[in-house]
Amino acid sequence: MAPPVLTPQADDFPRWYQDVVAKAELAETGAARGTMIIRPWGYALWERVQSELDARIKATGHDNVYFPMFIPMEFFEREAEHVEGFSPELAVVTHGGGKELTEPLAVRPTSETVIGDAMSRWIQGYRDLPMLLNQWANIVRWELRPRLFLRTTEFLWQEGHTAHATWEEAQAETIRILVEVYDDVIRNVLAVPSLRGRKTEAEKFPGAEATYALEALMRDGKALQMGTSHHLGQNFAKAFDITFSDENGKTQHAWTTSWGMSTRTVGGLVMAHGDDRGLRLPPKVAPVQVVVLAVKDDTVEAAGNLMARLVAAGVRATVDDRTNLGFGRRAVDWELKGVPVRLEVGPRDLEAGHATLVRRDREGKDTVGLDGAAASVATLLEEIQTAMLTEARRRRDDATIDVESADDIDGPGFFRIPWDRLGVEGERRLAERGYTVRCLLTPDGEIPAPDTAELVAYCAKAY
Amino acid sequence: MAPPVLTPQADDFPRWYQDVVAKAELAETGAARGTMIIRPWGYALWERVQSELDARIKATGHDNVYFPMFIPMEFFEREAEHVEGFSPELAVVTHGGGKELTEPLAVRPTSETVIGDAMSRWIQGYRDLPMLLNQWANIVRWELRPRLFLRTTEFLWQEGHTAHATWEEAQAETIRILVEVYDDVIRNVLAVPSLRGRKTEAEKFPGAEATYALEALMRDGKALQMGTSHHLGQNFAKAFDITFSDENGKTQHAWTTSWGMSTRTVGGLVMAHGDDRGLRLPPKVAPVQVVVLAVKDDTVEAAGNLMARLVAAGVRATVDDRTNLGFGRRAVDWELKGVPVRLEVGPRDLEAGHATLVRRDREGKDTVGLDGAAASVATLLEEIQTAMLTEARRRRDDATIDVESADDIDGPGFFRIPWDRLGVEGERRLAERGYTVRCLLTPDGEIPAPDTAELVAYCAKAY
Repeated sequence: MAPPVLTPQADDFPRWYQDVVAKAELAETGAARGTMIIRPWGYALWERVQSELDARIKATGHDNVYFPMFIPMEFFEREAEHVEGFSPELAVVTHGGGKELTEPLAVRPTSETVIGDAMSRWIQGYRDLPMLLNQWANIVRWELRPRLFLRTTEFLWQEGHTAHATWEEAQAETIRILVEVYDDVIRNVLAVPSLRGRKTEAEKFPGAEATYALEALMRDGKALQMGTSHHLGQNFAKAFDITFSDENGKTQHAWTTSWGMSTRTVGGLVMAHGDDRGLRLPPKVAPVQVVVLAVKDDTVEAAGNLMARLVAAGVRATVDDRTNLGFGRRAVDWELKGVPVRLEVGPRDLEAGHATLVRRDREGKDTVGLDGAAASVATLLEEIQTAMLTEARRRRDDATIDVESADDIDGPGFFRIPWDRLGVEGERRLAERGYTVRCLLTPDGEIPAPDTAELVAYCAKAY
Repeated sequence: MAPPVLTPQADDFPRWYQDVVAKAELAETGAARGTMIIRPWGYALWERVQSELDARIKATGHDNVYFPMFIPMEFFEREAEHVEGFSPELAVVTHGGGKELTEPLAVRPTSETVIGDAMSRWIQGYRDLPMLLNQWANIVRWELRPRLFLRTTEFLWQEGHTAHATWEEAQAETIRILVEVYDDVIRNVLAVPSLRGRKTEAEKFPGAEATYALEALMRDGKALQMGTSHHLGQNFAKAFDITFSDENGKTQHAWTTSWGMSTRTVGGLVMAHGDDRGLRLPPKVAPVQVVVLAVKDDTVEAAGNLMARLVAAGVRATVDDRTNLGFGRRAVDWELKGVPVRLEVGPRDLEAGHATLVRRDREGKDTVGLDGAAASVATLLEEIQTAMLTEARRRRDDATIDVESADDIDGPGFFRIPWDRLGVEGERRLAERGYTVRCLLTPDGEIPAPDTAELVAYCAKAY
């Protein structure tokens, strides 16, 4: 076996993260400050997230569109909270085609403004509602302390934008996206259990009436926001004049929502499951679910046949027949990349009519008969998917502690405290020590309704 | 029937194009000058193109990646032709995070420079070659006379970037992409027949050794470049120091290629097939291949059942049950949107046990028995796909004229003239009259090898 290549998590978690992102060839820093080059393995993970999300966004009735990334500065000034929130983060184009522009253009930090402007033209009557749009796009928010995937000046995301006839319909949309689209992908594909809750006033999106979020726990005990869904009330409808004629012919302002999930999720996937040997990928998000490793030249053909049978059974499998490289080095490399199952085919395996099976999610080796391999591996992948979610949930639950006072909030993990005991002032004081209220839930752990009186705050340090 | 909504092509083709793009709700102008909002129907077309292209790009061994869109200005200055070609079109970010930047950033007009810079780090030895990368991205080139899809300041595309050990391998890649990826999609999915040829020196990509292109004829007799593939020689490898150690341990510069296809293709699809009633979509690129139109309330259920059987047979079908709207208006709208097959289900159709079938690609109505409808419609869609390509090829061939002298080049269509008769000077004079050499082919209509002496120039006015 090759020597360990990563800084151990327990020694220095941020350093471990840097190491694994670099050595598993997920991404690296771009030439322009704060930007990121996403390499093939990292992009393949993002493509898996994209395709799972896109299918659910379409299944819930949304149409994909594309809006320009250049936004007239004037658009931002129409919604007071919005401009205040985003102005410090804008990148501004001042020159185009060799000339200075008469009006500078912002590079989109989010698209509520341009989409609101279009909706005001596209929506006339109640029959045009709901209008359910989504776009896949790059986004720019100037970052002073960039970290690959987690906080980069440019990142990739999808942003949904919808308009509705009533507050209730906008509320239903906001929650549907959080639960049926985002959490379904994050929990059931990425195997990351999240808290589903509402943000405090201090943490909500600039211009929103309410922000709902998914908050997951990383292996260092810090929280990461995995996706957000905003009820925008009539704020943007009023700023951009999105009105419709209702069934009685009366003109009303629409109610809008917006929601986004980004390449940051890939960072969350790495930090929620990774260990000292590298990534650990849940099968559903793994670009390669099974690698068949030909140990020697004379097992290359058998390894290829096994791979072909796996592919025919619907498994994303590949063969590693680089027998010019040492076996140990290749095994370590696939572990680093997080492939869920490794099947080793050596001369003695072939003699015994089996392959040696190594799961990435736990220790130990097993064997699987070559004959029934495809079917049993397909079943095993489902087991691994479930096991990884269970493990992550247990880790999260073990790190969730009830406290009576803000003074007890100290260390890794989630701290549960009644919101009326913490309050806005307590929240402000926590912030001074680097802790934030990640979200508010009901005492039963449910998403609170707007009028829910009894709320529990989940506090943590966060990325 | 509703009154005609489009300017007839024969009256004013550019106006017809504007009309159809607006009325079929493909796209509209964005708030920032020269930009474009791609609406759901237009974006659905682009998604079809994307998925067909992406599958072929992956099948030929390329990995998807993502590079930052902000490029330090200094990168452009390393390749002399490249900076000269792109400088006039750059958009420049001078402010970020509320401060003036010490070095301004260009918004990518293409990514040879940033990808070349990364390749110089990623490629060490001959075993790292070929390196086959692709990215899906937005691109900015400042446009003085924007036209939706055809020329917009921001557009969407994929750009492939590869590095190879030898000139021959780079040449094979350049041609493989043109033929097996681009032309396969444009001819066999978009049903648009293209000329496949080489660009003249005057028309090639800034920084390329040779540019190969697909040139298609629009219905007004003008040409549109549908995709390009560039052999970059060692120009970028030398500018960005992309070297590798060969099998003998000797350091050599790599040979690189790049190639791109963009949202412009959607404009080409519109202009190659559209008629005075709107779009005409080949089935393989149609987001909806069959619309089942319920004529009256009491045929809504039967229409829904028929749609379900079509979907089960793998047809992209939808039902139009908006019986509150007039039948004629709905029929005209689906024709405008270009859906290949309309099945009308009215009370008399049901009585007769059939649906009325209307093909978008030709005049006339037919009937199809409800029982075997799914299978016969699936077969019909293949027939329509072939018929549309045949029709477009005949139109192109009819509009291709052999001429003996540059003076005879006048009017719509392609003009074939031996390149040694036209020459660089003839090309220059043609340009003064608005004609360009679209590409050079062999006398047999093949892609010329670099040393082919006998070349035929295809000249046309172009978008």
